[in-house]
Amino acid sequence: MSNLSIPVILGTARPGRESADVAAVVLDAIKQRGTATELIDVADYPISGTEDPDEAARLGRYKELIDSADGLVIVVPEYNHGYPGELKLLLDSAYEEYNHKPLGVVSVSSGMIGGARVTEQLQLVSLALEMIPVEPTVHVRTVKEALDDNGGFEEEGLEGALASMLDKVTWYASVMAPARRARNQEPD
Amino acid sequence: MSNLSIPVILGTARPGRESADVAAVVLDAIKQRGTATELIDVADYPISGTEDPDEAARLGRYKELIDSADGLVIVVPEYNHGYPGELKLLLDSAYEEYNHKPLGVVSVSSGMIGGARVTEQLQLVSLALEMIPVEPTVHVRTVKEALDDNGGFEEEGLEGALASMLDKVTWYASVMAPARRARNQEPD
Amino acid sequence: MSNLSIPVILGTARPGRESADVAAVVLDAIKQRGTATELIDVADYPISGTEDPDEAARLGRYKELIDSADGLVIVVPEYNHGYPGELKLLLDSAYEEYNHKPLGVVSVSSGMIGGARVTEQLQLVSLALEMIPVEPTVHVRTVKEALDDNGGFEEEGLEGALASMLDKVTWYASVMAPARRARNQEPD
Amino acid sequence: MSNLSIPVILGTARPGRESADVAAVVLDAIKQRGTATELIDVADYPISGTEDPDEAARLGRYKELIDSADGLVIVVPEYNHGYPGELKLLLDSAYEEYNHKPLGVVSVSSGMIGGARVTEQLQLVSLALEMIPVEPTVHVRTVKEALDDNGGFEEEGLEGALASMLDKVTWYASVMAPARRARNQEPD
Repeated sequence: MSNLSIPVILGTARPGRESADVAAVVLDAIKQRGTATELIDVADYPISGTEDPDEAARLGRYKELIDSADGLVIVVPEYNHGYPGELKLLLDSAYEEYNHKPLGVVSVSSGMIGGARVTEQLQLVSLALEMIPVEPTVHVRTVKEALDDNGGFEEEGLEGALASMLDKVTWYASVMAPARRARNQEPD
Repeated sequence: MSNLSIPVILGTARPGRESADVAAVVLDAIKQRGTATELIDVADYPISGTEDPDEAARLGRYKELIDSADGLVIVVPEYNHGYPGELKLLLDSAYEEYNHKPLGVVSVSSGMIGGARVTEQLQLVSLALEMIPVEPTVHVRTVKEALDDNGGFEEEGLEGALASMLDKVTWYASVMAPARRARNQEPD
Repeated sequence: MSNLSIPVILGTARPGRESADVAAVVLDAIKQRGTATELIDVADYPISGTEDPDEAARLGRYKELIDSADGLVIVVPEYNHGYPGELKLLLDSAYEEYNHKPLGVVSVSSGMIGGARVTEQLQLVSLALEMIPVEPTVHVRTVKEALDDNGGFEEEGLEGALASMLDKVTWYASVMAPARRARNQEPD
Repeated sequence: MSNLSIPVILGTARPGRESADVAAVVLDAIKQRGTATELIDVADYPISGTEDPDEAARLGRYKELIDSADGLVIVVPEYNHGYPGELKLLLDSAYEEYNHKPLGVVSVSSGMIGGARVTEQLQLVSLALEMIPVEPTVHVRTVKEALDDNGGFEEEGLEGALASMLDKVTWYASVMAPARRARNQEPD
């Protein structure tokens, strides 16, 4: 499994976003497993809809990152029960690059629900992108209480849910990587 | 009912958007009922997340438009089973202004499903905004075939669905307008 | 508002269902407001799909109950992110009787998510039934801890969420009751 | 792939159900691929919630069928935007038996939407069951027009969508079957 790559998308560009701290915990947990990863921050990929050559170059880079990934984790806050617009704009800018790759979702919300609703909407979008959304999903409530001082989760349940989710993403990634390669080499 | 205002939000800023033609049909149908309306084009309300004073002024204008509305119709294409990011960014920029007002959804898609999936995701977001999403919803497939040369819907079913939806939005708007005013005048 | 009727549907028939205790709390809270209510237990309305005259009589009684209601509250556990089958069978046995009436949802789950997912699926079904699903919704985690010995909610947040939800259901019920009557008296 | 088993669940027990004709077409298409299949009719698995030994025996048989399957196709009508209660009751009676197996959905509706909404609700339930819902999904409108006299789909688009969906279910089944076996043999 040592050759897998599982980047983390930070799914909000809002100033003061607490999701950034959660993304750091997830990134660190993936690295500790010896799996290659990197942060894809939606704030670095603004989409204006105009024909800006710099923007086109950045989106080309995004597609390459997704194309070379074996799975993805998205850290996403819940805004009005749905996903942030800037995340959807970025997700919609690629398609085949996502196909048949596992997706882990870590949702963040200030309330007690912990983002279960944005998770469901995002999983449905990921099915349209032909991804494999995995169970369990991770739901972070009240970020400041959830994080400890050492860059981990204070809450025991969250620590376990994150580990289970990463186990599942990694397992699907390792199963699907050779299957995807074999599929792409088949004559049409 | 003659004093009601029911604006139409055009929910995509993509170049070449066919939803603009559908929004024009909806706008015209509302005007023909003698109800005040206007087009709110998401392309006119780009949200950068930066502290641009022009942007703040535009969003202030958006909130005023929603605040003075008695109901809304959103014309929205389906992108990967969900809503366009630019629409969600705009919707998330207000809250109380939407409360207790009816919402009609007209979805647009190139396939046969006609956007039933984005409609459901958008209705759930509208519940978080404390709106009243109405039945029926209108689903436009293959826009060029759906529109006739006179600015209406070619397909008889669509014409009827649009009329039923506008009947329902208008009815709820007329019922809720005095109820909202009475509620706002109550002492806390 | 003293003439309103807001029944409570207990949405599971599973042996040992903890949702029954939650439904009792909700029923009591509605009574304390002086609003007429009664429990509609799905276990009393089994639907076999056969042409059993007793079953037809029971369903006739259910339709009458819904028809004379001004609003509904459904207490529902989350099974595999969705609603119990027996609840859906019962809900599907009526239609016009639900139209234009507010719906409050109280979800119950053993985990921390508190049933946010079944709430969303049920709200979408209620939109098809032309109901008005209200905010806030109430999410009960770990029932035994949530209930106190006096037939109320131990947790302060739950008590407040239940009160806010019942305020909203009652307000919509009082607004919509005369509007529904006026609508039904209009010539077609 | 010749050893795969992909049963078809007929997801409604309503008298006069048109979905039965659609399920027959799907069953036939799977057989023509040389893949083992059989019909699982929800009408044969009524769930009363009582402690009926016959019922327990039937559910044991259902679990065995799912356990020995490598993938599933569910043919499901859309009732009030959701799934039939009898289907949910049956799905909820197993859990591990579904894990890590692909699911194809064929939805049936009398309207033009073709059941896109029940498909989304069912896919979310299938994620809770740790299945892999595949794209494309198949949406059958107006069953009598959709079926030809030879037990196939009249409409060309449906024929193609069904073939693509079965390709995908079969591919995932063949990839996941050895991966599931290897996973089950791992020491805990």
